[in-house]
Amino acid sequence: MPSNPDWVKALKPSGPQGSELLAQERAKSSLNVDQLADFLFTRQVLERNERILKILQAEPVFDKSQNYFRGREARIEAALARGKRLQQLSVQHKWSKEEFQTANDLVSEPTPYGLHASMFLVTLREQGTPEQHKLFLERAEAYKIIGCYAQTELGHGSNVRGLETTATWNPEDKTFTLHSPHLTASKWWIGSLGKAANHAVVMAQLFVNGKNYGPHPFVVQIRDLKTHEPLPNVHVGDIGPKFGYNTMDNGFLLLKNVKVPHVNMLARFSRVDPNTNKYVRPSNPSLIYGTLTYIRSHIVLQSGSVLARGVTIATRYCAVRRQFQDRDAPAGEIGENQVLNYTMVQIRLLPLLAATYALHFTGKGMINLYQENQKRMNGDVGKLADSNRAPGPEELNPGTDLLADLHATSCALKALGSTTAAEGLEVCRRACGGHGYSSFSGIGSWYADYLPTVTWEGDNYMLTQQVSRYLLKSARSVLKGNPPDNDTTRILKEFISRRDIGAAFDVIGSDTDLVAAFAWRVSFLTFEALRHRDEDKQSWNSLLVDFWRLSTAHAQYMVVKNFHDALNDPNTTQQLDPDTVTVLHKLFRLYALNTLEQEASEFYSSAAVTVRQITLARTKAVMKLLEEIRPHALRLVDAWKFPDWQLDSSLGRYDGKVYEDMFYRASELNPLNSVVFDPYPDSKVLFRKDERANLRSKL
Amino acid sequence: MPSNPDWVKALKPSGPQGSELLAQERAKSSLNVDQLADFLFTRQVLERNERILKILQAEPVFDKSQNYFRGREARIEAALARGKRLQQLSVQHKWSKEEFQTANDLVSEPTPYGLHASMFLVTLREQGTPEQHKLFLERAEAYKIIGCYAQTELGHGSNVRGLETTATWNPEDKTFTLHSPHLTASKWWIGSLGKAANHAVVMAQLFVNGKNYGPHPFVVQIRDLKTHEPLPNVHVGDIGPKFGYNTMDNGFLLLKNVKVPHVNMLARFSRVDPNTNKYVRPSNPSLIYGTLTYIRSHIVLQSGSVLARGVTIATRYCAVRRQFQDRDAPAGEIGENQVLNYTMVQIRLLPLLAATYALHFTGKGMINLYQENQKRMNGDVGKLADSNRAPGPEELNPGTDLLADLHATSCALKALGSTTAAEGLEVCRRACGGHGYSSFSGIGSWYADYLPTVTWEGDNYMLTQQVSRYLLKSARSVLKGNPPDNDTTRILKEFISRRDIGAAFDVIGSDTDLVAAFAWRVSFLTFEALRHRDEDKQSWNSLLVDFWRLSTAHAQYMVVKNFHDALNDPNTTQQLDPDTVTVLHKLFRLYALNTLEQEASEFYSSAAVTVRQITLARTKAVMKLLEEIRPHALRLVDAWKFPDWQLDSSLGRYDGKVYEDMFYRASELNPLNSVVFDPYPDSKVLFRKDERANLRSKL
Repeated sequence: MPSNPDWVKALKPSGPQGSELLAQERAKSSLNVDQLADFLFTRQVLERNERILKILQAEPVFDKSQNYFRGREARIEAALARGKRLQQLSVQHKWSKEEFQTANDLVSEPTPYGLHASMFLVTLREQGTPEQHKLFLERAEAYKIIGCYAQTELGHGSNVRGLETTATWNPEDKTFTLHSPHLTASKWWIGSLGKAANHAVVMAQLFVNGKNYGPHPFVVQIRDLKTHEPLPNVHVGDIGPKFGYNTMDNGFLLLKNVKVPHVNMLARFSRVDPNTNKYVRPSNPSLIYGTLTYIRSHIVLQSGSVLARGVTIATRYCAVRRQFQDRDAPAGEIGENQVLNYTMVQIRLLPLLAATYALHFTGKGMINLYQENQKRMNGDVGKLADSNRAPGPEELNPGTDLLADLHATSCALKALGSTTAAEGLEVCRRACGGHGYSSFSGIGSWYADYLPTVTWEGDNYMLTQQVSRYLLKSARSVLKGNPPDNDTTRILKEFISRRDIGAAFDVIGSDTDLVAAFAWRVSFLTFEALRHRDEDKQSWNSLLVDFWRLSTAHAQYMVVKNFHDALNDPNTTQQLDPDTVTVLHKLFRLYALNTLEQEASEFYSSAAVTVRQITLARTKAVMKLLEEIRPHALRLVDAWKFPDWQLDSSLGRYDGKVYEDMFYRASELNPLNSVVFDPYPDSKVLFRKDERANLRSKL
Repeated sequence: MPSNPDWVKALKPSGPQGSELLAQERAKSSLNVDQLADFLFTRQVLERNERILKILQAEPVFDKSQNYFRGREARIEAALARGKRLQQLSVQHKWSKEEFQTANDLVSEPTPYGLHASMFLVTLREQGTPEQHKLFLERAEAYKIIGCYAQTELGHGSNVRGLETTATWNPEDKTFTLHSPHLTASKWWIGSLGKAANHAVVMAQLFVNGKNYGPHPFVVQIRDLKTHEPLPNVHVGDIGPKFGYNTMDNGFLLLKNVKVPHVNMLARFSRVDPNTNKYVRPSNPSLIYGTLTYIRSHIVLQSGSVLARGVTIATRYCAVRRQFQDRDAPAGEIGENQVLNYTMVQIRLLPLLAATYALHFTGKGMINLYQENQKRMNGDVGKLADSNRAPGPEELNPGTDLLADLHATSCALKALGSTTAAEGLEVCRRACGGHGYSSFSGIGSWYADYLPTVTWEGDNYMLTQQVSRYLLKSARSVLKGNPPDNDTTRILKEFISRRDIGAAFDVIGSDTDLVAAFAWRVSFLTFEALRHRDEDKQSWNSLLVDFWRLSTAHAQYMVVKNFHDALNDPNTTQQLDPDTVTVLHKLFRLYALNTLEQEASEFYSSAAVTVRQITLARTKAVMKLLEEIRPHALRLVDAWKFPDWQLDSSLGRYDGKVYEDMFYRASELNPLNSVVFDPYPDSKVLFRKDERANLRSKL
């Protein structure tokens, strides 16, 4: 790499220095950052993060300095090396699941072991019998076999029932034949399949005696355990580069009549009896809804911290960056204004800052509810054994009502949370101006890697149908007078009882009215949709846009409600200084009022709020909150406690040395500066100093 | 590269085939695609495109098959080779400027010559004297010197007056000393500077006799013409990888007291007299506003076609992709539904399809106005010679009133058009579901390369202040009773005259009322903002959010108006079949009514439209338009006439062979499939078949 000449090394940024500006920023607020961080994450977790960070930083394989420069092959090579080392360290330090996850979060890029460590192990554990645990799970946990979870196909994404891969029971030799009948049956997008896995859990349509029993999971060995070459009649490989996630080997898989023994069908819930050659129905499919709910609740919690990385980077940089003078500044005043002082920047960043906290509290609330419910549910296992198919959540028995409500809420919140995080990150990137486009901003790659979350674990648009179906069902039960008791039916009943009186919520003066206005809007949209469907007999397809709006409204209500509940929890006031609670309360109001303003037309048409109050919310209340939160912005992002090493961002450095870091990375780390172009079009030479080989061996 | 085994080669996608589905789609509509394309682009241009496409396809250097797989070094290497070949072909075929541009559009990625061929040549031409043309421009046009335009600095983006680089006049030896006093003075983001250029036009603060005359352009040689190594006291290089645009060598540049002769200051508009050592003031700075207006008008026109690429890809793929059955389908019906049939997909894609046409007509309208105005302006040159600084557009004399209006409109439309295109592309990518995330979708890289447009040529948020300043000034002149005559003052006067009567526009029943409702909203917001600023004395900073909304409203009005005007132009009805005009009219209404619905709260609060009509617009009119446009969707994207070679997309193929192409690229073109991982964490080997060197030499 080239080194800077001495006269360049002597140059500093023009003053005031970024470090001075950030120090001034932090001095503006007396918010207790450590106390707030302890409250958000617990002291124990923060100490764990620091401990694991030290371990990783000491290992050369985790050095991030070349990450942004590498092409895909070099990146995945490094990711494989890191995945291996993470596993070794995990064994060496006897890491818990949480500690292993922490290490992965700090590394902040997927490795080719990603889907082995998650879906492969989870599926074997949850869907395998004790015999299968011994045969597959134990070896997988010891990394003697490496696997993946192969569901999605080239021609089929969300719709599992449309999968084309078949598994046919052979009574004569007690085996299954796995087969890909068409090109579109090729498994596709499967993480860890492309290069790393030697086994796959393949979801395939089970045929017994010519009858299709729907998709079931089969363990299939796909590569030789020694040579790692594909087995005969298996065609497997990496699906190529993607918008992000390029350190993962998402793969394809075609099978040509590959036989596996009876024991390879994961048989905890349903199986083929090898003696009678009959299909045995699933014993407790509702458990699966529980797992999905759990995964989605975690996506909600995670969406807060995913977004917080972008908000941290953008807020710090907008405090360092200065651009133009204030137009109303006194004539004599020199010096440019910090970008964070402009209201047009504040209105983009601070509601997102509020959203990070809102999503964090909502995610925690969801996980708590889930865990409480799991305890209550333990009596209900096995009641659905009579059904021969996976029931929808609406079909679960009364004991699982709360789970149905939780399931619907988790769908709505997963869609809203991941959309908010993904789109918010792009807003943060643009708020950094031109430099946001540099890889060194650290936002672009993070955004690109996160984007699949809006599609996986339930496409965000598809999920809104499930939410609406549940809300319509709840509304019908309210109208019939026999609703189960949960929050959803309570707000629907409240709406019905006041429908003829109307509502006039004081959204600016009262927090409870503010929450109630969000509830009112959900109820209004629910009964509107119900009328279209049940009375006007509109087609399902014609209502999809309404359903999407309804689900979004429901999710926004839940976020506002959860944030409000968190602030009013006695724990909160016990653990935090009153000043901190006051600032969090402003964030709550900013999130709620800004959302209300953005969705103003629905609040108008549901007649929940007067036109005057919405106008005031925008022009007065929100603008005032921006001003009040502004001095605390830096400490509020500091409380997220992202180490610089994790952010890997020039713009988001804790110490504000933005320009020094940008320059260092560009001029000293950038391998492209090792070659010299030949600039003339008639010359056949491209690089005059041909150090390409050298360059590439470094990458 | 690996080759697929025979049994894989024999596989086809399950039916119906993509090619059959697209054929059916095209049969649903009788829209005359070729006639519409001729109308949009002219026959002559379409033939030119075809001719140049053939030339490029015949050249191996333009082969795109490895584009998505390459890392940055390999990509920029290929781009340099392509840039050279394009220049050779340009000379060989005597290409016009338009033909050269067409070739670049078809290649669809920037090359390291990009800024030489545009800003360097343009600046020399427009700001150089005849002597300087001879000295620099002629050699630059012959590619004997390669240059760039170095304005932005590490610490300074939009605010040109804040630049730190200095150029000090030395009376003793009649030279200028160019110097970078701080690290933040480093030129940054400069296209073609990083590796390709040996000259730069450097914008620097001109100091004469200790006085600062503001930023001026200087030609500085930065690299040796033979060795291409940096000259002494010049530190120059590439700034590193970016979110996109990685085939361009955006560079940095630091200068340590580098002397250039007097002739190197571009002196057409202002100069230093070498005899008196005095600064001579600029003679006609308003020309620069003309150029900016022209560039921005082109960005508006281009935004339509940029977005149309994404809409073409997504519409074709959503016609091939089938997912789930229609919930209301008769029980016996088998087969999955085309994704394009779902209203939730239509509401995302079809308004964007409408926007492509809307932006195309608007861009054309702007360019026509600009050209007319240039003719009229030719008498006004030189009138501003008495000013010693660049005047704002609001300060231009009455003869340039129309230019001021055009300038403001071009700012507003540049912001709206580029934001619509950038964000619309991401909507298109997501509408493709999971496969949209694959590089082979062709949308992701196109989006990433386009993104800087929202920041450059005026940051989209900054521009909205210029627009608002102009609208406020116009409103003041209307209130004073001495407004210049243009469209802006006309709509403001109309609003004033009807303000006390109110308005009730029939947006669903009447097109002219629909356009008038958009005009009314602009006027309402303008006078609101004026009241806040002039009467309530609110600070400029506190109004930035209002200004951004105002500018957006103005731009949306202009788009709706231009689309409406284009449909009512006699040329349109002469050149197009009545059925085609009918479909375009539906697109107009979809664009307008969908925008109205999305901005509903402003239409409510300006009292332009009744609540009932807005509700009807959403639930009835827009949904009906989606249904009516749906059968024509494929032909409407076909009319954009993008060749497959240009799109480089598996999903957007004209023939619908989506899955075959995805599979081919992944399994046969993907170099990662040439290596074999070692999957075990305790092994130190990463790749068992170490073909890395081989792999990299291919890239």
